[in-house]
Amino acid sequence: MEQTTTTFTDTKINFCPGPATLPRIAVLEAARGIVNYEDTGLSVLEISHRSKEFEAIFEEARALVKEILGLGEEYAVLFLTGGASMQFCMVPYNLLPDNGTAAYLDTGVWSVKAIKEAEVFGKTKVIATSKKFDYTFIPKEYLLYSSYAYLHITTNNTVCGTQIHKMPTTSIPIVADMSSDIFSQQRDYSQFDLIYAGAQKNLGPAGTTLVIVKKDILGRVERKIPSMLNYQTHIKKPIFNTPPVFAIYTCLLTLRWIKSRGIKQIEADNRKKSTMLYEEIDRNPLFKGIARPEDRSMMNATFTTINKAHEPLFLKFVEAAGCVGLKGYRTFGGFRASMYNAMPVEGVATLVDLMQEFERTHG
Amino acid sequence: MEQTTTTFTDTKINFCPGPATLPRIAVLEAARGIVNYEDTGLSVLEISHRSKEFEAIFEEARALVKEILGLGEEYAVLFLTGGASMQFCMVPYNLLPDNGTAAYLDTGVWSVKAIKEAEVFGKTKVIATSKKFDYTFIPKEYLLYSSYAYLHITTNNTVCGTQIHKMPTTSIPIVADMSSDIFSQQRDYSQFDLIYAGAQKNLGPAGTTLVIVKKDILGRVERKIPSMLNYQTHIKKPIFNTPPVFAIYTCLLTLRWIKSRGIKQIEADNRKKSTMLYEEIDRNPLFKGIARPEDRSMMNATFTTINKAHEPLFLKFVEAAGCVGLKGYRTFGGFRASMYNAMPVEGVATLVDLMQEFERTHG
Repeated sequence: MEQTTTTFTDTKINFCPGPATLPRIAVLEAARGIVNYEDTGLSVLEISHRSKEFEAIFEEARALVKEILGLGEEYAVLFLTGGASMQFCMVPYNLLPDNGTAAYLDTGVWSVKAIKEAEVFGKTKVIATSKKFDYTFIPKEYLLYSSYAYLHITTNNTVCGTQIHKMPTTSIPIVADMSSDIFSQQRDYSQFDLIYAGAQKNLGPAGTTLVIVKKDILGRVERKIPSMLNYQTHIKKPIFNTPPVFAIYTCLLTLRWIKSRGIKQIEADNRKKSTMLYEEIDRNPLFKGIARPEDRSMMNATFTTINKAHEPLFLKFVEAAGCVGLKGYRTFGGFRASMYNAMPVEGVATLVDLMQEFERTHG
Repeated sequence: MEQTTTTFTDTKINFCPGPATLPRIAVLEAARGIVNYEDTGLSVLEISHRSKEFEAIFEEARALVKEILGLGEEYAVLFLTGGASMQFCMVPYNLLPDNGTAAYLDTGVWSVKAIKEAEVFGKTKVIATSKKFDYTFIPKEYLLYSSYAYLHITTNNTVCGTQIHKMPTTSIPIVADMSSDIFSQQRDYSQFDLIYAGAQKNLGPAGTTLVIVKKDILGRVERKIPSMLNYQTHIKKPIFNTPPVFAIYTCLLTLRWIKSRGIKQIEADNRKKSTMLYEEIDRNPLFKGIARPEDRSMMNATFTTINKAHEPLFLKFVEAAGCVGLKGYRTFGGFRASMYNAMPVEGVATLVDLMQEFERTHG
């Protein structure tokens, strides 16, 4: 008989862009599962992926994804690996014919990476880009031809902090990289034909990638696809090879938390947090926002100090107060506050207080 | 301030073929890291993969792999995802030219899967196979031409319980799937040009795959390789995208345990465990081994009851005594005792006792 006791001192407010803060209840339950999974006398790290215990975890997680997003039988839910970066390659591998063209909306570095991988397999057409404007807004005017194999969009852009608030409507399949905003708001998720998301923002720890695919868009490409990279392999045999058991288990714990709060309430909280922060960015004479207001992200708020000399001072100030992960992406510098589902309203309120305090001391 | 207390009742002996039993110290430390990673006030599930904390984990893990295996600067150590199954495709993607031929030694179902994926990219030559004999031995006679792009071997075969005890010597690059026996014994690991291993047997939890590659064998294939599937991407930029942070952390904890015991002692224990079990299989009139004695695996012992009617009875008997994961692979039925590094000698001794007890009651 061994015992482990650990004390969690909740001293940090984690604004990291991902891996990111997770619901406390999921973190503690995950730790318990590692020591002794549901009184099996085994760690969740040691159970077989063919055991009834894991099968139950896997099926509940897949069912919850569909239930929460309101999706039907025509969709398959897969837990793969390799992050969104692997999807940048799997999407064209499975959907872009050798002589076909895929349309990409270029809204930032993640779109650019996705485009680069698609070019290994076929032609790409960048239908619109805000690159010349440092991706500070979402381009809204573009032409879509029905001959495109699919349209790829990045619904939320973590680097500049922009988000697509009005989805394109088109008859061609829509593929959406939702790595940073899935489960964060109500949406008609059935308007998408393929959704993918690295888990490490709103869903769980790094180590698994959620893919939701409408089955009828598959099987139209003639090339040979390696088994692991073929969506149909994983649809036919959901546990094709050893999956990342623990990462999927922690996703399940997070999905249960999402379900218990309800996506409506989660969206309301996310709106409250982001509104509170953007209002302060706009009000406080020492700061300014980076993204154009109409395209601001509810997940990642980017801002900078008006006086460049304030930047390191403010960073030091918030870090001393226990806020971590606020340093902006290298492209823009400044600050980025990532406020995914598990970030409490109080966490953002603390940041707003710190901005006001900084104004009093440095204004 | 929150506190979590969990009691670990050590009631099970885990003979699962993988995910498998892990060192207790690694499991408990992993649980502590989830609650509060080294007093950062953050869970290891929530730290950024760009943080100094994760960089330290990553670099120590990579260095320990080389140190334990005695490998030099000419090798790169990568922690990828997708398991050995993804390597079945990445190996030929990176090493097999369109018009080239790769040699495969077919020693079981895992070799067959590897061969199938290689055929997507080029030609394969099965230099020898024991398929007609249900893979109960390792073929030892074969011809190797210097024109082959590489020779692929599976050093340990979990299904039938065979293991290559004498490695082939050849001037062509040797690629070894060591998923089930890496770190289990002293070996001249520098005789291999590429080694891969899913973590979930001797290295850590499911969710990461160790790849060790001699850098000079890369870059000889002309095809376009998607970034995530190109070994050179991960060599140039070791944290190319978000890696499976927690799985790598738990591998590090296991690597520290391996280092502290020493691979020599680990091998001695593994030899002791397997000798003890095989001696009982050969002695006990109620059981017989499946694999040919000279090729028996030190990791996975396969055996069956001589009287078919005893099979379900013995399984029930050992399960009642707390042994899990002993049911054999569907091909052979019977039993498979997986005895990876973290299986204590006492665990195997208990199984031997149970076989003797079964003999007394059913002989």
